[in-house]
Amino acid sequence: MAKGLLIVLSGPSGVGKGTVGNALRKRLPELTYSVSATTRQPRQGEENGVNYFFKTRGQFLDMIEKDELLEYAEYVGNYYGTPRDFVEQTIEQGNDIFLEIEVQGALKVREKFPEGIFIFLLPPSLDELKDRIRGRGTETQATIDHRMSVAVDEMNLMQHYDYAVVNDEIDLACKRIESIIIAEHCKIR
Amino acid sequence: MAKGLLIVLSGPSGVGKGTVGNALRKRLPELTYSVSATTRQPRQGEENGVNYFFKTRGQFLDMIEKDELLEYAEYVGNYYGTPRDFVEQTIEQGNDIFLEIEVQGALKVREKFPEGIFIFLLPPSLDELKDRIRGRGTETQATIDHRMSVAVDEMNLMQHYDYAVVNDEIDLACKRIESIIIAEHCKIR
Repeated sequence: MAKGLLIVLSGPSGVGKGTVGNALRKRLPELTYSVSATTRQPRQGEENGVNYFFKTRGQFLDMIEKDELLEYAEYVGNYYGTPRDFVEQTIEQGNDIFLEIEVQGALKVREKFPEGIFIFLLPPSLDELKDRIRGRGTETQATIDHRMSVAVDEMNLMQHYDYAVVNDEIDLACKRIESIIIAEHCKIR
Repeated sequence: MAKGLLIVLSGPSGVGKGTVGNALRKRLPELTYSVSATTRQPRQGEENGVNYFFKTRGQFLDMIEKDELLEYAEYVGNYYGTPRDFVEQTIEQGNDIFLEIEVQGALKVREKFPEGIFIFLLPPSLDELKDRIRGRGTETQATIDHRMSVAVDEMNLMQHYDYAVVNDEIDLACKRIESIIIAEHCKIR
């Protein structure tokens, strides 16, 4: 049986990875979506194994120790990571698995799964990205400048990816990602 | 300006290249379709420069001499070939061009355009291909056997292509080809 594909969607913060990822879940329900592990508290309605695998700090550090995470990061005092088991099992069963993660994490995954399909989500322009980062809320100018500089650094990592998809319209971005998955299944390796 | 892509659809005789190519013309009118040169007589309703570029034998031999054809072949006493100019101009203008040709011809084109996208159209099975070759008409068993053996030889050339698309249903085959074109435009080169 042919193995499934690992499909990684990433891109600079503010580009709309989450929104595109959610739209893709509706459009391609046959894809398996990776579930992250986290040490943060479950929010109302969140289910263990569905939204996240909820772990104590001790459990999470143990997973790091045992190399059970493809990548992980600390964000606002909590750990987030991608459990290796679930990804490997899905692929071995011949199903595709979809990961939506940060740029640095994606490059970590690439080290472990060089045969994965790495898709970089692009803003239509840098101005557009600035508007989206600014539009998030009531951040100070310093915070916006910092986020923008991080985003520009992240943009420079695009060269390590296989595909670039412009997020001009969610439907179009989804169609491009779907096309990439179909095409990769037709590829002669 | 980004160059256009050269997209070549090929596959064993009897697989349905022509049918899929025609369905694709309706589905993707924005693609430019390569027009072959031929020495055969125009049929009722065929227009020069639309269906074919009609050439005398002398003109055609002159094109071969001047390396103005990407590939050519003789078939039932007539020459057929792909004029290089039209392909190159279309690509330079930033438009994609689509070629639907025989397996051997496609490999000749690959020598001149290694950066082209080469798609191999596959029958759902060898039995299915045999049915299609047999179903064409009133050929003798010897002719069917010969065509089948040529088709099997052609199948072995699939490894030189980039993508394999199964022609199980015309709509599905067209969707896969469209997906390959969209994905190739997203590729980071």
